[in-house]
Amino acid sequence: MTAGEAIHDRFMAKIWITELRMAELDDKQLGLIDRYWRAANYVSVGQIYLMDNPLLREPLKAEDVKPRLLGHWGTTPGLNFIYVHLNRVIRERGTEILYICGPGHGGPAMVANTYLEGSYSETYPEITQDEKGLRELFRQFSFPGGVPSHVAPETPGSIHEGGELGYALVHAFGAAFDNPDLTVACVVGDGEAETGPLAAAWHSNKFLNPHVDGAVLPILHLNGYKIANPTLLARMLNAELRDLFRGYGYEPLFVEGHEPIPMHRAMAASVDLAMDRIRDIQREARKEGWSGERPRWPMIILRSPKGWTGPKEVDGKRVEDFWRSHQVPVSNARGDAAHRKILAEWLRSYRPQELFDEQGRFRPEIAALAPEGEKRMGSLPHANGGLLKKDLVLPDWKSLALDVGQPGETIAEATRLMGAYLREVLRLNAEARNFRLMGPDETASNRLDAVFEVTDRVWMEKIEPYDGHLAREGRVMEVLSEHLCQGWLEGYLLTGRHGLFSCYEAFIHIVDSMVNQHAKWLKVSAELPWRKPIASLNYLLTSHVWRQDHNGFSHQDPGFADFVANKKADTVRLYFPPDANTLLWVTDHCLRTWNRINVITAGKQPQPQWLTAEQAERHCEAGAGIWEWASTCPAGEEPDVVMACCGDVPTLEILAAVDLLRRELPDLRIRIVNVVDLMTLQSHTTHPHGFTDDEFDALFTKDRPVIFAYHGYPYLIHRLTYKRTNHDNFHVHGFQEEGTTTTPFDMAVMNELDRFHLVMAAVRRLPNPGMGGERVVELCEQALAEHASYVRQYGEDMPEIREWSWSYKTAADAGD
Amino acid sequence: MTAGEAIHDRFMAKIWITELRMAELDDKQLGLIDRYWRAANYVSVGQIYLMDNPLLREPLKAEDVKPRLLGHWGTTPGLNFIYVHLNRVIRERGTEILYICGPGHGGPAMVANTYLEGSYSETYPEITQDEKGLRELFRQFSFPGGVPSHVAPETPGSIHEGGELGYALVHAFGAAFDNPDLTVACVVGDGEAETGPLAAAWHSNKFLNPHVDGAVLPILHLNGYKIANPTLLARMLNAELRDLFRGYGYEPLFVEGHEPIPMHRAMAASVDLAMDRIRDIQREARKEGWSGERPRWPMIILRSPKGWTGPKEVDGKRVEDFWRSHQVPVSNARGDAAHRKILAEWLRSYRPQELFDEQGRFRPEIAALAPEGEKRMGSLPHANGGLLKKDLVLPDWKSLALDVGQPGETIAEATRLMGAYLREVLRLNAEARNFRLMGPDETASNRLDAVFEVTDRVWMEKIEPYDGHLAREGRVMEVLSEHLCQGWLEGYLLTGRHGLFSCYEAFIHIVDSMVNQHAKWLKVSAELPWRKPIASLNYLLTSHVWRQDHNGFSHQDPGFADFVANKKADTVRLYFPPDANTLLWVTDHCLRTWNRINVITAGKQPQPQWLTAEQAERHCEAGAGIWEWASTCPAGEEPDVVMACCGDVPTLEILAAVDLLRRELPDLRIRIVNVVDLMTLQSHTTHPHGFTDDEFDALFTKDRPVIFAYHGYPYLIHRLTYKRTNHDNFHVHGFQEEGTTTTPFDMAVMNELDRFHLVMAAVRRLPNPGMGGERVVELCEQALAEHASYVRQYGEDMPEIREWSWSYKTAADAGD
Repeated sequence: MTAGEAIHDRFMAKIWITELRMAELDDKQLGLIDRYWRAANYVSVGQIYLMDNPLLREPLKAEDVKPRLLGHWGTTPGLNFIYVHLNRVIRERGTEILYICGPGHGGPAMVANTYLEGSYSETYPEITQDEKGLRELFRQFSFPGGVPSHVAPETPGSIHEGGELGYALVHAFGAAFDNPDLTVACVVGDGEAETGPLAAAWHSNKFLNPHVDGAVLPILHLNGYKIANPTLLARMLNAELRDLFRGYGYEPLFVEGHEPIPMHRAMAASVDLAMDRIRDIQREARKEGWSGERPRWPMIILRSPKGWTGPKEVDGKRVEDFWRSHQVPVSNARGDAAHRKILAEWLRSYRPQELFDEQGRFRPEIAALAPEGEKRMGSLPHANGGLLKKDLVLPDWKSLALDVGQPGETIAEATRLMGAYLREVLRLNAEARNFRLMGPDETASNRLDAVFEVTDRVWMEKIEPYDGHLAREGRVMEVLSEHLCQGWLEGYLLTGRHGLFSCYEAFIHIVDSMVNQHAKWLKVSAELPWRKPIASLNYLLTSHVWRQDHNGFSHQDPGFADFVANKKADTVRLYFPPDANTLLWVTDHCLRTWNRINVITAGKQPQPQWLTAEQAERHCEAGAGIWEWASTCPAGEEPDVVMACCGDVPTLEILAAVDLLRRELPDLRIRIVNVVDLMTLQSHTTHPHGFTDDEFDALFTKDRPVIFAYHGYPYLIHRLTYKRTNHDNFHVHGFQEEGTTTTPFDMAVMNELDRFHLVMAAVRRLPNPGMGGERVVELCEQALAEHASYVRQYGEDMPEIREWSWSYKTAADAGD
Repeated sequence: MTAGEAIHDRFMAKIWITELRMAELDDKQLGLIDRYWRAANYVSVGQIYLMDNPLLREPLKAEDVKPRLLGHWGTTPGLNFIYVHLNRVIRERGTEILYICGPGHGGPAMVANTYLEGSYSETYPEITQDEKGLRELFRQFSFPGGVPSHVAPETPGSIHEGGELGYALVHAFGAAFDNPDLTVACVVGDGEAETGPLAAAWHSNKFLNPHVDGAVLPILHLNGYKIANPTLLARMLNAELRDLFRGYGYEPLFVEGHEPIPMHRAMAASVDLAMDRIRDIQREARKEGWSGERPRWPMIILRSPKGWTGPKEVDGKRVEDFWRSHQVPVSNARGDAAHRKILAEWLRSYRPQELFDEQGRFRPEIAALAPEGEKRMGSLPHANGGLLKKDLVLPDWKSLALDVGQPGETIAEATRLMGAYLREVLRLNAEARNFRLMGPDETASNRLDAVFEVTDRVWMEKIEPYDGHLAREGRVMEVLSEHLCQGWLEGYLLTGRHGLFSCYEAFIHIVDSMVNQHAKWLKVSAELPWRKPIASLNYLLTSHVWRQDHNGFSHQDPGFADFVANKKADTVRLYFPPDANTLLWVTDHCLRTWNRINVITAGKQPQPQWLTAEQAERHCEAGAGIWEWASTCPAGEEPDVVMACCGDVPTLEILAAVDLLRRELPDLRIRIVNVVDLMTLQSHTTHPHGFTDDEFDALFTKDRPVIFAYHGYPYLIHRLTYKRTNHDNFHVHGFQEEGTTTTPFDMAVMNELDRFHLVMAAVRRLPNPGMGGERVVELCEQALAEHASYVRQYGEDMPEIREWSWSYKTAADAGD
């Protein structure tokens, strides 16, 4: 059975094909397609191997070959094959197609194709479309000072780094949401298809609405092998594959073979069928009276040889259609004349003289197969999302602020106010359709449910009459997969939109590596003038460590901050708003930023409130500051001790500790410093938000003890401050990995972050503990003992702790 | 259609069922099963709600109810239902079944069942099998000082924490490998089924060999809802689900309904069918002449209502069969009399008097349904793997050690020697079948391919004649999913076996959160005397940041060490062997340890070798030490400068820097300190491997400049040493997030970790730079300029760098 027959045979079995429209490509068209493909393959091989002699006008010499051969051939011819077939349908139909290249090692293909279509030279004018440019193009590839061997931010037309595998399909869906005219062709390699995130990503079709969203055309590329092994999906039988993908909700079209011309015919027919099907689905869904049913979207399963058209054997060993073609099929072609001969024959097999003219320009009759202008996949604006980004219309956050009364008097859930703010964001940008909220099934549990006053959760499965806030259209995306939430949001942002991901603090580690890769993308993109800034990736981390007393140790981990703090300073911001109004300011601020990763950590539980809107604004703008209203040290004077805090629970505990100290040791001069923006602690030479040493010393003094209550692992504070004058006097309390199922206050006690331990820590460091310190320590020890016994008996915190009676007064009340 | 009919109808459609064996349970058996189930449900609700009055002998009073209601009912009745049906088949067939409870919130069910069968009281004798014990059992649940609301290390019979979701199925397969007599019943919740790791885990069947491994029986439990949402899989039609799981290679048996008796009948029949099918598969595979084909394993898809048998409505709102039953279906039953009435009716609906006798003992006629002794799922030794663990037989590593000659003279790939060592481990333990090697397709690329002399990669798909080292039996497991590698290994270790996971350094972040959860498991387990120690989780991180010059920035991340260092000190070890013989010692050492997470970071590229086997042994046992043979400061005297290093590339660069300094500034007294075991840097009060301050000062001095070349982010060194005497003089060079595609040496230069920058850093800190320092700085700057120009021209490092001519001599040669 030839590939042409195979596809025909399989199509007949598809239930949804009522009319079989095989592309009737004539020999001329087929010939052009094949030549275009050969050109892309030639330019790919050239990048991997050649330093010079780019058109092989002369016999291939040793010095024409790069000394170090670094790059990946295996997946490349398949990617080139797909690219040329997409080019054809874009030209024929005028569709906007975004090409997402999942295979990590597809760099040569994407560079080759964007070069051939002209996008590359427009982006990088020094890489001209002639022999000189071709030489430069070849030389720079995987070369110091040049471009990576993977698809990367440097690659025009890409929103997807080909480094760590697993995220091609989530990026594709993220790009398609709210882009009704866009089709995202997403090539999934059979290596990547083994990963967890990719395996879950197929279910993204349950969140894609053909009425308002674009389409994703997955192309599963089974070329059989990873680095040194066959792949699972390639060795599965077609019958199992068909079951699997029908089970996922797709209709797979199989294209399989190795003879170029029948393969072109089969691929052209499949792409046409898939595009027809997408058009039909969208037409149907965009008519009046659409049933709202999730359609069965098409997908293509392409089985083609790894290293297709490369050397069949080298040194008597199988290379084409085997894992040995994964990287560089012919090693040491510089030093080994026999190998160089194989390379030369291989390159000449594409007949470069038929592809490029005397000046080294791609022959116009072949080049004409590519689309023009912004329809070229290397020039599609969606792949440089900053070009399309519109700023969000944001509400006046102060109009939503809380009237806090006296400090500590008002109890509120900070994230509930944030929910109201996000509701307004959704309302104001409803028409623009450029903001989405992601989360693993926790929008309501995180108290953000005000958003459901103006939108719903998007849901393409059955909706029961008793379901709440599920709808075919909805701007909230909930799925129990942090990978999907993260990946969809990345895809959405990278194509020029905005969003926020709310997550349990402990479980955000699930996407550590994805955040890593996104941070890398942002760092490199920022160095490329042609890449326009995209909206920041914003996190709300809630249900945090100090309120996971009920879920226990497995849910307690504040380490994401440590992880993120290792990334480039330009990219990273960590915010710990201590109450509702500061959270509002921070949220508003983050949504106005670009090219950053903003991590907001804030609790969802009822807590005392501290700052008015005006105070919150001043405090947050500074990033950290002295809370004079709670300090007992007169402004401008040196305190006996600094009590510092960062995070909502640490702030509560520090304020309770100082409250106690104010009453018990009225002469003690205490300064309270609260840190909202953690990066202020770093030096301004390290981080743009960092304080100068003078600013830092003005808060933390040069020599007084600093008791620092921090939300996370204490080490991070030491790491950020070890170069500061007063660092040796920093005593940081934070999470010490002591967690279990207990009460909220007991969690603080177990880790010595509670008011009593903080008081004792302060008293111990005073120069003159005789001023009554011993009595206070006794008092604290007694309180801790009482707490322990109460908690063991009743399973909840003592009323005195839960309803602490605050002595703080507002500035006005205090008469100052 | 009743559930009974439904299952019958579906079974008829299964291709592999030749003989339909419906369990002919009589009414008495059904009645017993149902009563057992009611008892488990009763004990579950009791745990969530009751402080006292455990048998409801008196009317339910406010003070009988816990003040804080913390726990999850929703998934519990389904888990109880499954447990009782597994009990029946264990008794009938004598099978060993390990119950893996995927749903995170299944704590009450597993505690209830292990209590009813007696395992719980044997583990915790204070929880007696009478009214008093029942009261304690109820009270301790999700209570300070008690047990978590999730399945946790505290839960007998469990190897799987129910906190972060996604890993039930990988743990199940890990447990089944090399356990031919074990069947692992793995309950996968429909929430968890949405995660990436779980979606990929279904493919684990492609690695399970029925000839030598046990069986996994997945039970996909579709109860419809997550926290506040329907689940994807529950809303999919059965036809799609059947396609999906047939595509994954399973034969699904559907059990669906809500009426208890028909459901018991259907479940019993399904479990029998599944167990028959497993028996048939295993018989076939264990006969002579087995085809070796991957079988189609059975699985059960159980659709039952969330919160089954709980209150149907509360306050007029739907609860049973809806997400509102997820956690505590009736809130505030202590304060609200109407709610308390609902709770009392609910509890009485199970008719506790029929289940427990006057003393509060489970009635023996019902209890008899449970298996006995170690067959009870709460007492299965596999679930306390340390009981079964046999120490590995380990080779004499010195017999594999490298003859290094003069320091720097011999070039070797460190991991290649490790491969030889692992080959011997595999050979010596071949019969015990208790060691496996995991990795995402990189065993050969990581130079561990010596292992293929004695084993193969396990592979249950088609094997082609030209494939290499694929076999039905094999102890190397390669799949392009770090999640699967990690999860399989965890399951394997937790059931008493050994292993090692080799991974690209940058991509180990993919499993950050899994490592987190495993570390938590180890910490809590170590506090439980009845949990026996298990073998350590060993990592080889290779293809590390400094040799990712060819793959570029996306592959460069040394931050896993930072992440792991936040975990409890008892659990974590970080090793950076500088060469092959030290790597051998470290590998040997790690395989002898238990209850730890050992992270070994070592390169796979050819590098100069430094230490003989004897030197390596002495050095590694100390963890860190002075390399006298390379220092110019006489032993016992104070140096002018300390040049410290940790990691193979940093060691190379420090030695090259000192080599240069020795020649240029012969009077300079340099001490070289190499750190293998990073945790020696911490205080001995913080980490068991930590040096005392005296030991630390003896290496790093109290006041001399220390130029520290570290493999990863410099901050970690500061974090570990900020309390040491000489910390202010530490100048750490490491990865500064400056990466791209370049040459290996240029990677070091970009991050100022190269020999020339290190020399300049040292010279700048000398008390008397006039001793010739300026000239040396000039020399270094010139060398860097030459390097830059050479690299940009040729794309490889200068020969002088690649083939540095070392001046070091062995102690013998040096005559000392």
